[in-house]
Amino acid sequence: MQDTVLIVGAGPSGLSAAATVSAAGYKAVVVEKEETLGGAPILSGYARLVPSGEWAKDAIGRMVSRVEESDAVTIHKGAKVTKLEGEAGSFTATLSNKKKVEAGAIVLATGFTHFDSINKPEWGFGTFEDVLTTTQMEQMVASGKIACPSDGRVPERVAILLCVGSRDRQIGREWCSKICCTVSANLAMEIKEISPETDVFIYYMDIRTFGLYEDTFYWKSQEEFKTKFVKARIAEVTASGDGRLLVKGEDTLVKRPIIIPFDIVVHAIGMDPNEENPEIASVFGVALEKHGFIERAEHYTNTCGTTRRGIYSAGAAYGPETIDDSISQGAAAGSRAVGDLNALVQKAG
Amino acid sequence: MQDTVLIVGAGPSGLSAAATVSAAGYKAVVVEKEETLGGAPILSGYARLVPSGEWAKDAIGRMVSRVEESDAVTIHKGAKVTKLEGEAGSFTATLSNKKKVEAGAIVLATGFTHFDSINKPEWGFGTFEDVLTTTQMEQMVASGKIACPSDGRVPERVAILLCVGSRDRQIGREWCSKICCTVSANLAMEIKEISPETDVFIYYMDIRTFGLYEDTFYWKSQEEFKTKFVKARIAEVTASGDGRLLVKGEDTLVKRPIIIPFDIVVHAIGMDPNEENPEIASVFGVALEKHGFIERAEHYTNTCGTTRRGIYSAGAAYGPETIDDSISQGAAAGSRAVGDLNALVQKAG
Repeated sequence: MQDTVLIVGAGPSGLSAAATVSAAGYKAVVVEKEETLGGAPILSGYARLVPSGEWAKDAIGRMVSRVEESDAVTIHKGAKVTKLEGEAGSFTATLSNKKKVEAGAIVLATGFTHFDSINKPEWGFGTFEDVLTTTQMEQMVASGKIACPSDGRVPERVAILLCVGSRDRQIGREWCSKICCTVSANLAMEIKEISPETDVFIYYMDIRTFGLYEDTFYWKSQEEFKTKFVKARIAEVTASGDGRLLVKGEDTLVKRPIIIPFDIVVHAIGMDPNEENPEIASVFGVALEKHGFIERAEHYTNTCGTTRRGIYSAGAAYGPETIDDSISQGAAAGSRAVGDLNALVQKAG
Repeated sequence: MQDTVLIVGAGPSGLSAAATVSAAGYKAVVVEKEETLGGAPILSGYARLVPSGEWAKDAIGRMVSRVEESDAVTIHKGAKVTKLEGEAGSFTATLSNKKKVEAGAIVLATGFTHFDSINKPEWGFGTFEDVLTTTQMEQMVASGKIACPSDGRVPERVAILLCVGSRDRQIGREWCSKICCTVSANLAMEIKEISPETDVFIYYMDIRTFGLYEDTFYWKSQEEFKTKFVKARIAEVTASGDGRLLVKGEDTLVKRPIIIPFDIVVHAIGMDPNEENPEIASVFGVALEKHGFIERAEHYTNTCGTTRRGIYSAGAAYGPETIDDSISQGAAAGSRAVGDLNALVQKAG
């Protein structure tokens, strides 16, 4: 058991952790609750990823293949850890499929849950067919055709509303979901590329295309793809009477009410804590922070640690995270686990 | 040599890489151009770090101690790599101190250079004594006393100007420096804590306190510490005639010119590519991306790679980065290097 790391979750961070453990010469056991590997980018059918521009199925598919092809990695699909015994160096996990996994260290790469737009009812999702989420819009982009779900017409105007389920105290989401601004700027470019006659408007509070995303996504989207960014507070999305949608709010730059008709309205949905976090915290004996994400042990010499020794975490399990950083953090967590196993080997030898 | 990783730079990412290599049972040789380890947080005298609130000297100091105390890590201070021969699996580096280092893989943790405010002359740095950079203001916070450098008076009002050397096409800085918004919100709280009679204003384009920084820094700074956030375009900083400074610009929310007197003006300086990157690129044979940061090989299965096999990178060498993610990326890069060494061992064995 002292040569094995248990990795829970097979999204970008978990796959990265498994590859890291395997490359270092140790064994990884990956437990994934779904029947498909790859996490949110695959399960939700993301289109082209930011910032690489690669299709999710190719990019994450390559990560899946690398792990599936490794002799050092065992994968349990459609399974969860239901019980954990032992301690750092000698954990025994019981899975929902009744199998037992012995491991010296554990990585919780358990990710997040997409915000459910039904919880923001005044913005029309669930009421109007042509109100979609970013993941639904990405699926439309992946299909290669931009059309209104209600009647198949090519949209003249698409609105993307940022911060749906983010930065919103009224619905208990105090956090920013970090990547929706960049994803939305990218999505606007993809829509325009497929459907040049469609104009895309992005309604925002702040545009958070941090780091190198600034010119590659924000500026490029405006200058080359004519995306219109409108700083606004949105009040509601209603029907216009002629089959279109009305986005009503206040333009916060000119302090005037705005009511603009759109054919499709897209909710840039945020990242909630994994809805199973209370169960995960209980099974693994780790603490959650105030919003419900997994609590980090310490930022400098144990940055991938949880509040329990021998159990590490990575990626969106800790809070809203980009795919790129989830992958780095997965490798970092995997390397911490490898460090623990190596210490056990040294001690035994 | 096949058990050794050469790590260039001993800031957060390099220290993290060295600890990772050492924990996995391999050797690290760290080459740092300065005589002091710890990188920017130590060399520039940062105060409390975001988001942990720990003092830089304690937090990064702990990382330095861990590496210094490891038998598996050799450190060359005040040294640079001047020549690199060989290839992945068998590199030989010649140092400026004439020593040679043989290594199977390399991690470039070569960081960034702070933007020099002299390059934004209309904002008063270098002209007025009471115009400071964020790093100078952090040093003042660390000293425990907030006072105007010109005459020692307690400032009634402090202005922090965001995006100095960031998001500014006029001076060739197209990127956002990612962490200045959060650092500035934190700095405003620290100033208020030490000097409750001082009011702090932050002039911004967008507030980019992404992820979990939103409520902990942006909201808290406004609600508990009364920091005033002003969306504005700053034109210039001039003298008022009575020994104070005038910040002139346009409030972009009300579209009106604003001229407000301040006692101290702080430039939230951005992160430039390491000024030595052209030399680093040439010595190590790696490519730089269009802004001058180190170019990433690929985002998914080789996220820490450079354009040269066997050479990895991490942290702010790739672009503006937080300390936390620099540490994760350092561990990730270290683990990639460990993977390479393990493959060599397997092949040899």
